[in-house]
Amino acid sequence: MAGFDFTAAIRVRFHDTDAQGIAHNSNYLVWFEVARVEYLERYAGGYQTLRDQGYESLVLESYVRFLQPARFDDRLLVHTYVAEMRGARWRFDYRITRGEETIAEGWTMHATVDAETFRPTRNPAWLVESILSVQSGAPPSSRSSPS
Amino acid sequence: MAGFDFTAAIRVRFHDTDAQGIAHNSNYLVWFEVARVEYLERYAGGYQTLRDQGYESLVLESYVRFLQPARFDDRLLVHTYVAEMRGARWRFDYRITRGEETIAEGWTMHATVDAETFRPTRNPAWLVESILSVQSGAPPSSRSSPS
Amino acid sequence: MAGFDFTAAIRVRFHDTDAQGIAHNSNYLVWFEVARVEYLERYAGGYQTLRDQGYESLVLESYVRFLQPARFDDRLLVHTYVAEMRGARWRFDYRITRGEETIAEGWTMHATVDAETFRPTRNPAWLVESILSVQSGAPPSSRSSPS
Amino acid sequence: MAGFDFTAAIRVRFHDTDAQGIAHNSNYLVWFEVARVEYLERYAGGYQTLRDQGYESLVLESYVRFLQPARFDDRLLVHTYVAEMRGARWRFDYRITRGEETIAEGWTMHATVDAETFRPTRNPAWLVESILSVQSGAPPSSRSSPS
Repeated sequence: MAGFDFTAAIRVRFHDTDAQGIAHNSNYLVWFEVARVEYLERYAGGYQTLRDQGYESLVLESYVRFLQPARFDDRLLVHTYVAEMRGARWRFDYRITRGEETIAEGWTMHATVDAETFRPTRNPAWLVESILSVQSGAPPSSRSSPS
Repeated sequence: MAGFDFTAAIRVRFHDTDAQGIAHNSNYLVWFEVARVEYLERYAGGYQTLRDQGYESLVLESYVRFLQPARFDDRLLVHTYVAEMRGARWRFDYRITRGEETIAEGWTMHATVDAETFRPTRNPAWLVESILSVQSGAPPSSRSSPS
Repeated sequence: MAGFDFTAAIRVRFHDTDAQGIAHNSNYLVWFEVARVEYLERYAGGYQTLRDQGYESLVLESYVRFLQPARFDDRLLVHTYVAEMRGARWRFDYRITRGEETIAEGWTMHATVDAETFRPTRNPAWLVESILSVQSGAPPSSRSSPS
Repeated sequence: MAGFDFTAAIRVRFHDTDAQGIAHNSNYLVWFEVARVEYLERYAGGYQTLRDQGYESLVLESYVRFLQPARFDDRLLVHTYVAEMRGARWRFDYRITRGEETIAEGWTMHATVDAETFRPTRNPAWLVESILSVQSGAPPSSRSSPS
């Protein structure tokens, strides 16, 4: 899966299900976050590092496309990568798979902000560089967007 | 606010907040659902009526644009209307306000499915008609989409 | 219902249900919190006042007894009162009713702590007094505990 | 830790935190459930097997004692075992640790019910036996209760 070399493993909890017998749609945003946090830990010192340096990251937009329902105890993989990064913004793209099947996809747009004022601030250079360096070759911002 | 004549009241729970001190982004999908359920109760006999007749409604897509953080104990209004309805599909548009301020907006796309098979099935006529009749004049499908 | 003169209204959200078709057990702790927050707002200037004065309130223990399942769209009342208050501790008792029926009961024990250090600190006098004064006559600490 | 030979690993999600900067108290009941589900998978064919055979398991009571706050990204272990099993009832005991430290403990009481009627029904023999056989030596029902 081009670009999506990082994955986080999710197991659908009973708590995640609803009376339709499937995972409630709001969980996908939580699973995206789990993948994002693990991605940042692997490649950029972790979200906590960002916070420790006085930054926060606010979610500006979220989009999810639900292709197949997820059910209790399903083992899912959340594939993610940074699809865009410029100024104070960055975008993560996601694809959720169950076995061979893609069951959902989506993206979230983020702003890096000052933790005190919540004002947008340029992505710190170390963050941009560490992400650029791991994302195989081409700069993420040149990738096409699925949205 | 054109089209948005229906509102549901939300009060941000402490449980909804996260370590950034603001409401977590996944809650907005829950609040959208609360508004959707109340809308259907008011205008179409309720979501339970739909379920009792052998239908379910699956979420196909969701989009949220976060404009201002929501905080603990904030009183919010979720404005919603059916922006599109054709075949097995329908779309709800939402706007969340706090006082005079719009703090988020978004939409969700749904499919009406058979409750047994989860296969898409044409929206029942009574549902289409009851919604058309309440949404001031023009058919919803002719409205322009914010997405 | 002796002591339980304060109630908060809850409507079971679709999100609260699980694949058993009933409200997931973890929600009851959220509903208890909603009632607690509304109680404090009514009688003691609000939880935010407590926080603004440099206090936090940590949950030390929670107990829930589930008598009847709650279902999607049920209208519930959460009855609560302060059953105990001494030193840095206080306990809320709860009873959840649906119509005439009690469907759950429980209690939570809390510690008042310094918001900086999270160290226990004596309940502020104004808080004790405002709660004592509203809880009809007898001091709460003399009430018998249901646990 | 006597009896607690089974553990499930939990990593505190950002979503689990609240504006106090710690994990919200309702999550512990979800983490207990995660451990319970993994326990049943390991020793009794899984919760889904129980459901497939026409049983459901309802939570009758829950108790949590919070000893130390859990924070974002903490790695926790939930230790659990079946502390009691008789008639239609069974009780799980839990201990949550972070490194060497116990940060919470608790228990949940369950009833096995008929999935159609939600009426209590005797725990199926295969379930009792498979749990008895794995829990080192002494029958669980003879263990002393922490509550």
